Amino acid sequence: MKKRLFTPGPTPVPENVMLRMAAPIIHHRNPEFMEILTRVHADLKYLFRTTQPVVVLSCSGTGGMEATISSIFKQGDKVITINAGKFGERWGELVRVFTGNCVEEKVAWGSAIQPERMAELLKEHPDAKAVCLTHSETSTGTAADIKTLSALIREESDALVLVDGITAVGAHEFHFDDWGVDVCITGSQKGLMMPPGLALVAISERAQDIIKGQSGMPQYYMSLKKALKAHAGDDTPFTPAVSLVIGLDEALQMIKAEGIENIWKRHESLANACRQGCNALGMKLFSNSPSFAVTPVWIPEGVKWSAFNKALKNSNGITVAAGQDEYKDKIFRISHLGFYDELDMLTVIGGIERALKEINFDFEIGAGVSAVQKAFLGN
Amino acid sequence: MKKRLFTPGPTPVPENVMLRMAAPIIHHRNPEFMEILTRVHADLKYLFRTTQPVVVLSCSGTGGMEATISSIFKQGDKVITINAGKFGERWGELVRVFTGNCVEEKVAWGSAIQPERMAELLKEHPDAKAVCLTHSETSTGTAADIKTLSALIREESDALVLVDGITAVGAHEFHFDDWGVDVCITGSQKGLMMPPGLALVAISERAQDIIKGQSGMPQYYMSLKKALKAHAGDDTPFTPAVSLVIGLDEALQMIKAEGIENIWKRHESLANACRQGCNALGMKLFSNSPSFAVTPVWIPEGVKWSAFNKALKNSNGITVAAGQDEYKDKIFRISHLGFYDELDMLTVIGGIERALKEINFDFEIGAGVSAVQKAFLGN
Repeated sequence: MKKRLFTPGPTPVPENVMLRMAAPIIHHRNPEFMEILTRVHADLKYLFRTTQPVVVLSCSGTGGMEATISSIFKQGDKVITINAGKFGERWGELVRVFTGNCVEEKVAWGSAIQPERMAELLKEHPDAKAVCLTHSETSTGTAADIKTLSALIREESDALVLVDGITAVGAHEFHFDDWGVDVCITGSQKGLMMPPGLALVAISERAQDIIKGQSGMPQYYMSLKKALKAHAGDDTPFTPAVSLVIGLDEALQMIKAEGIENIWKRHESLANACRQGCNALGMKLFSNSPSFAVTPVWIPEGVKWSAFNKALKNSNGITVAAGQDEYKDKIFRISHLGFYDELDMLTVIGGIERALKEINFDFEIGAGVSAVQKAFLGN
Repeated sequence: MKKRLFTPGPTPVPENVMLRMAAPIIHHRNPEFMEILTRVHADLKYLFRTTQPVVVLSCSGTGGMEATISSIFKQGDKVITINAGKFGERWGELVRVFTGNCVEEKVAWGSAIQPERMAELLKEHPDAKAVCLTHSETSTGTAADIKTLSALIREESDALVLVDGITAVGAHEFHFDDWGVDVCITGSQKGLMMPPGLALVAISERAQDIIKGQSGMPQYYMSLKKALKAHAGDDTPFTPAVSLVIGLDEALQMIKAEGIENIWKRHESLANACRQGCNALGMKLFSNSPSFAVTPVWIPEGVKWSAFNKALKNSNGITVAAGQDEYKDKIFRISHLGFYDELDMLTVIGGIERALKEINFDFEIGAGVSAVQKAFLGN
């Protein structure tokens, strides 16, 4: 059976990227690799819309978050974290481990932090050293308004703006410099269309100054200070994941060829068609501020997730993402992050129709795929 | 842009087959390869439904046809060929080159030879040494009733039954032994889900006796006599296309795992859904005896093939096959031969909708994809 992946990481990897990575391995200190890394460093600036360094760490996105927290703060530093889902919660866990002083704001799953509440938090905690935000909260398929929030934090405080952009970079409009973000992290297995294994971390001048001026928390490999120092010579402090960096070079060429603005538009359009398809099948959307990376959908009443997922996976080769934590059997999530096109939305909604039919859910056959076609082509 | 191939050869190659072929090359006389070739020989008998040898030639399907003609006949032998399209015509060209005595029966494109006419031909030419048939005529997407025709030829004459099964084997029900076929040829890049480069030729006892008892026409590499002799020791007379044979081993394991009867049913079902999708878009089918491998469709009035094809290929990454010869700008052909599943039919009909919309053809958007879903799932 053909396998079709619709999960928000790993996401599908294009063949040309796979083939580049399958070439014989080269040494990471030879000129050929140094040339690739130099190009990757330049192209990552294009991706993040920044003139500042974007360092390549050989670890997952969470590693990038850890390096950020452990490199910027000192024991006792107060940090505000926004927990509107599993990945916002992770910011809090990291802050508690490293500084021990976390102000965690909980937001209902499926919603995003509102600017008004952000302003209150900043007033309540004028001594906060930073605010940790999540651009696209993968667990809830919900997008936060980073542009507005970042401007507000910059205006109302001296707190740094730290953004988990893991499923947002490459899916949502994002301007690291113009929006005044201090750190943004993404992972290779997301909008970058790569296998997992790399974290990319953009760092503002203000954040660089802090990182360079102190020794950071107990850390060694996870050091943005070391990473920045090496980056200045287009190098890495430790052995990088060579084949992944080479694949990233290929993926970044694809991104530049398509154009980042076009990629943002494509994700918005795919997300919209996916939502139309779900609506047409009588399924309700979960988020009130939906992400362009992943569409979370309520599992319809009377449908058992295990049976539905089995029909999707075993009969149709389609993998979507389950709900997490308390929403485990209540929602499922369809990804359209990374290497997807409009015909893929037809496939995933078509596959969902097939699975719903198999478990005897009542709907009009063809309504979902028709809605997808109409979303792209008009009536 | 993602590329999606819907042509009747080459057809898509599964990843596991590609990966097997990408492994380091091995020598064709070492035990590891001999074991693979022995297994391939056994599994090809399963595919053709025969206990007779099926030889592996490193050439295209046409090479298999040439080896058949040049190995079985002598100069002057009379052979009846049925020309209902480009590939039936090829039988005639081969016979004229080698024996110089071809009785070519022309049948209108889009139709198949009828048993009544076959009976007349046999009566008119009692001295014919063989009849050359085409099971699935790729140029017209038309299937002939090989079971009935073969039984008739066996009953009414001593002529051998030679079948071009190039786009039929693996798509249409076929029983080499039970149907009394003497030679059947297929190519690797068709129902076998492989790249081009191999011809597979099944040979009946009766045909083997003729081949072994004579020296054949001027030929050397293209010798079924040499191929049969080597096959007896699970070997090949000349260097085989090693990586292709290894890939064929992988593909045959997939075929056995799915089951040949299921594969025939799948092709029939995909063909039916494809036809329903085309009908729902107001397009007319070309063949009156449609193949399960490829669906030929009249290009609707007012639509220019070049514009339609450009929209399919350049905007949607979809490659279908053009019409051939006098039907060049009049029909196009959608393949569902080999590594295709039901969601692929949704993709190709969805892509055709997208292309038709781009060139401003008038149809109900979503009607095609809805019809495909209904063909598989019911109303």
